Amino acid sequence: MNPSKVWGRVVFLGTGLIGGSMAAAMRQAGLAGHLVGCGPQASRAKELGLIDEAIDDPAVAVGAADLVVLAAPPSALPELFRQIEPVLEPEVVLTDVASTKSTVISAARQALGERFSRFVPAHPIAGSERHGPDAADPELFTGARCVICPQPETDFWALQQIEAIWTAMGARPYRLSALEHDEVFAAVSHLPHLVAFALTASLGKRPDAESLLGWAGGGLRDTTRIAASSAELWADILIDNSAAVVAATDQFVEACNALRARVQAGDRTSLAEQIEVASSWRRRLRG
Amino acid sequence: MNPSKVWGRVVFLGTGLIGGSMAAAMRQAGLAGHLVGCGPQASRAKELGLIDEAIDDPAVAVGAADLVVLAAPPSALPELFRQIEPVLEPEVVLTDVASTKSTVISAARQALGERFSRFVPAHPIAGSERHGPDAADPELFTGARCVICPQPETDFWALQQIEAIWTAMGARPYRLSALEHDEVFAAVSHLPHLVAFALTASLGKRPDAESLLGWAGGGLRDTTRIAASSAELWADILIDNSAAVVAATDQFVEACNALRARVQAGDRTSLAEQIEVASSWRRRLRG
Repeated sequence: MNPSKVWGRVVFLGTGLIGGSMAAAMRQAGLAGHLVGCGPQASRAKELGLIDEAIDDPAVAVGAADLVVLAAPPSALPELFRQIEPVLEPEVVLTDVASTKSTVISAARQALGERFSRFVPAHPIAGSERHGPDAADPELFTGARCVICPQPETDFWALQQIEAIWTAMGARPYRLSALEHDEVFAAVSHLPHLVAFALTASLGKRPDAESLLGWAGGGLRDTTRIAASSAELWADILIDNSAAVVAATDQFVEACNALRARVQAGDRTSLAEQIEVASSWRRRLRG
Repeated sequence: MNPSKVWGRVVFLGTGLIGGSMAAAMRQAGLAGHLVGCGPQASRAKELGLIDEAIDDPAVAVGAADLVVLAAPPSALPELFRQIEPVLEPEVVLTDVASTKSTVISAARQALGERFSRFVPAHPIAGSERHGPDAADPELFTGARCVICPQPETDFWALQQIEAIWTAMGARPYRLSALEHDEVFAAVSHLPHLVAFALTASLGKRPDAESLLGWAGGGLRDTTRIAASSAELWADILIDNSAAVVAATDQFVEACNALRARVQAGDRTSLAEQIEVASSWRRRLRG
């Protein structure tokens, strides 16, 4: 892997948990000269020392940028691509951190014109149910995988540079197709979030919801931890990957109903067998 | 709360995680003279020093017992009650640790005859996805709640004694009706387990199940941690509380499908609102 170059002017469109952590990690790794942030949390990110400068207008912020990192909520990205396209330098490199890839790539292809070859789609596999710049951490990506989804048009030098940045921040870049990425993350991330939201929603609307809070043990707390995640971000993610999420949800509901049928029938042997299959797969998960 | 008396001969029918931990905690708190264990894991519990003596036959083990703790899998309890009833001393106290209460109480009422008044149904809210005597820990109950479900027939002195034992082991006893207990734990424990089993089962049967293991992040690991629990124990628990579990599962599946419908419709505003309601309830859970 090539060592990363130092980027003179790096602009973050979005300085929440991921954008803020990436700014802090780039600074810590000596990868950035001047760090600019844009978006509703940029002034807080500046107060926290994550960036050097906060600028309101994205089209102003990205002028003369060497690297633009789109780290805003996924639903804001199509409009951001349109706003910044006219002012991008020819040699700029762009990347993103969105949890869904097909939708973002298609929006970028449509809006960026010739500059689309300079856009390297990326998704670092790191996060937290905490959000905003106050939760930012330069070590967030240490040891994490980062999916990179190069397109046929993607400039090879730009691709290598983005991979070098992630490597320098302690992450391990992996290339996947956008379709493969979206299928995998519907399964390992988007579905578990939907399930945690649904579990919490179904408990929260019970007449005894108040007293349940006092009886919750470690099992419920772990199972629903990610239900505390940002509602707007997750509405975007689930909808941007809706086909794969709906398919995964249907398979999951089918598995629920299969267990439910055995519970209702009182079929201990068959229920225990089904649970054992689930348990044995779970035991193979690290951690 | 009265200080607990010291029990001369304490017999554990079942020495897995809960029985083994309770034996260790009673010994540590100086509550027991001679600790006897019975069941398939009793010899291992003796090797580990959790009990003093392992005896194969429950009817032999409980002879002359001052306190009998039923800590076997729930499906074994009806037969155990029948086996031990003929040999119980008049002054014996019995208790259990099962995660469902109505079924166990009804089995005890049927099998124990006059001795039913000496049976104090209990459920310590502590556990782990680990199981067996090797996972036993005398501190398992420290700070935990323990539900006690006294019946109209329950001897008041026996009730107070069992509450004193739990207090001495660091737990906080709470009295609930069996029905209330079973409704609450269907919601906060049994449903989350069923959900974790279903989530793991639906992912484990995908064609890409192998590669998913490598992409799992903290969200999936937390959401499915309890899916590694003992299959036979959980088949028993879900079936012993089937009415409440089925009702809670149906409400949950309805919540899943409500989210799914909004994902499919691309309705960001309404989806974000639903998620926000779920998130805000989750944020009120301790830990």
